[in-house]
Amino acid sequence: MKNFIFQNPTKLVFGKGQIAKLAELIPAGGTLMVTYGGGSVKKNGVYEQVAHALQGRDYIEFWGIEPNPHVETLRKAIDVGKEKKVDYLLAVGGGSVLDGTKLVAAGIASDTDAWEIVLQGKTEKQIPFASVMTVPATGSEMNGGAVITRSETKEKYAFRGNYPQFSILDPEVTYTLSSHQIACGLADAYTHVLEQYMTTPGQSRLMDRWAEGVLLSIMEIAPKIKQNPKDYDLMADYMLAATMALNDFIRMGVTEDWSTHQIGHELTALHGTTHGHSLAIVMPATLRVLKDQKHAKLLQYGERIFGITEGSEEERVDKAIEKTEAFYRSLGLTTRLSEENIGMETINLIADRFNDRGVAYGENHNVTGDVAKEILLSCL
Amino acid sequence: MKNFIFQNPTKLVFGKGQIAKLAELIPAGGTLMVTYGGGSVKKNGVYEQVAHALQGRDYIEFWGIEPNPHVETLRKAIDVGKEKKVDYLLAVGGGSVLDGTKLVAAGIASDTDAWEIVLQGKTEKQIPFASVMTVPATGSEMNGGAVITRSETKEKYAFRGNYPQFSILDPEVTYTLSSHQIACGLADAYTHVLEQYMTTPGQSRLMDRWAEGVLLSIMEIAPKIKQNPKDYDLMADYMLAATMALNDFIRMGVTEDWSTHQIGHELTALHGTTHGHSLAIVMPATLRVLKDQKHAKLLQYGERIFGITEGSEEERVDKAIEKTEAFYRSLGLTTRLSEENIGMETINLIADRFNDRGVAYGENHNVTGDVAKEILLSCL
Repeated sequence: MKNFIFQNPTKLVFGKGQIAKLAELIPAGGTLMVTYGGGSVKKNGVYEQVAHALQGRDYIEFWGIEPNPHVETLRKAIDVGKEKKVDYLLAVGGGSVLDGTKLVAAGIASDTDAWEIVLQGKTEKQIPFASVMTVPATGSEMNGGAVITRSETKEKYAFRGNYPQFSILDPEVTYTLSSHQIACGLADAYTHVLEQYMTTPGQSRLMDRWAEGVLLSIMEIAPKIKQNPKDYDLMADYMLAATMALNDFIRMGVTEDWSTHQIGHELTALHGTTHGHSLAIVMPATLRVLKDQKHAKLLQYGERIFGITEGSEEERVDKAIEKTEAFYRSLGLTTRLSEENIGMETINLIADRFNDRGVAYGENHNVTGDVAKEILLSCL
Repeated sequence: MKNFIFQNPTKLVFGKGQIAKLAELIPAGGTLMVTYGGGSVKKNGVYEQVAHALQGRDYIEFWGIEPNPHVETLRKAIDVGKEKKVDYLLAVGGGSVLDGTKLVAAGIASDTDAWEIVLQGKTEKQIPFASVMTVPATGSEMNGGAVITRSETKEKYAFRGNYPQFSILDPEVTYTLSSHQIACGLADAYTHVLEQYMTTPGQSRLMDRWAEGVLLSIMEIAPKIKQNPKDYDLMADYMLAATMALNDFIRMGVTEDWSTHQIGHELTALHGTTHGHSLAIVMPATLRVLKDQKHAKLLQYGERIFGITEGSEEERVDKAIEKTEAFYRSLGLTTRLSEENIGMETINLIADRFNDRGVAYGENHNVTGDVAKEILLSCL
């Protein structure tokens, strides 16, 4: 096991009716800005619940943080925040609203341009923020990360900062999500776990078991949610699994990969592919291309997640990868670039971008532009 | 899933050589008191590492917090702390030193007598404290609980308060633990999980999986540790599993039991039985007596932990309980009161104590004095 430091201070406030606790959770005094996306919260009752909980309190609303939040939009929120001397932010919406709000929190606390903050990769200077999370997927509600898009250049990068002071998760607010949102959310959470798990085996028995526990839970609930997306306990399992998939709980003392995410971000930046969907396309291909490197863990994964115990090691590895792709497809997502009309032009562009950056992603820092190209060709 | 609020602010600083980080982790200024047990830290090198890390800093030492820490000892530490205006505590040792220090932290911050604080069951008034944990077992290094003994009346009760600000866990310091300490530590951690898991099934798929993940990890490492108690990765797995067994991570949204602990505490208070050992004796008996109530979860446990899939449900339940007792015995612990020369006098006394308190413990609040007697007869 590697040495590590773990600390996750976010207060998770989970369950039915918990939005009503907002007033006691947000510090009194100061100037609050509530950030929203495009208005779905007005259809699912969340807006009314938030407004009711904050009754009698002055606050500003900022609307229009889009999916894959654009730095161009967030700069406007930062300007408003600075002008109104905002000192607390509440994001109400999905992972994009919260990710965007994390950058707004950094931008208000700094004189540096917002995109510069993203490019720096991390910041500790942020005004405090919290969330009412409505879309289980990104885990942003309990981690310090955020992914931001610069639309003018079609670039998408992550940065790390502080954790939300609290996040309210009420599974009932997920009842109005579309089946595509749920599919992408499940794919996102599943892939988050694989990025932290599909590495060198034997680093931590417990972290392996916990990662597998999230995978098994998602596998089990996914078909049931399709049948009944308004089953409270199912949606609670989904919401908790998505949060626990990316809140540092399964990455203590172990190496991580994240090359699938790096490639997926490019697809989203260039084509607007929903984040979780981009991962469903890339992850099986990453496993195919890196299957020798990930051989031992793929065997363990195949046995513990899919019960694959027969055949040669090579066959079991291939079977585990096939079943992974089949799982993503079972969610209702495509897993091939050609199905999304993405072709060689994009593949070459992504390879060039990686090469231009001079970076190599993944657990072993070997996912160069050339390897990324191989991965993308494998899911063409 | 039940509504819940989760927040665990402890910073976990895990790995080789991490004790050297003490100086940067403890706030500068103020008056620090370092608390110790009976001196084992002078044999395993921990004392030197702490002294070296704190070189150049003034601090007070308090020695002599015993196993199952006595309120009588802790009152002395509180007096010293008040006299010297101590405002930060560092516990260096096992769960007892830290549990005792948690009460000292409360006593220094209060005018209430220390035993009164214990009887109140919880406190929020504590000076800040942290730990260097040397014995993986209680999880005290990452939770808000503490168990204190009043030796003059042979009573033992738990109270809850704040969490350690940080805890340093270096697996290398466990190399000098005795085989009995390790056996009791593994039994303690395993039982902590069962108290949070062996309840009504279907409350949270993920919490079930994570609890099972800790159980499976402990099952797997226990025989290997016997063979090689100085294998770093094994001891790291053990240390992490013990912490994760009782830090709120596996109890989100689910009911808990803890009746085995209540009975075990009595055995420790009356006979000095090591805490983990007392649980190894009581837990199998609790499962035998409450097996109808815990039927469905015992089936799941039997299948997922021991691979029991054959036979009638009744047979599978019995087999799961037998295997649980066999596991405790495999650690090198006895599991019957008669093996420890504990007999009817103690059984009747514990039943009387429960009846006198007018309490009923367990998930379903049905472990009365009479049921406790039945459980104790079952492990006689």
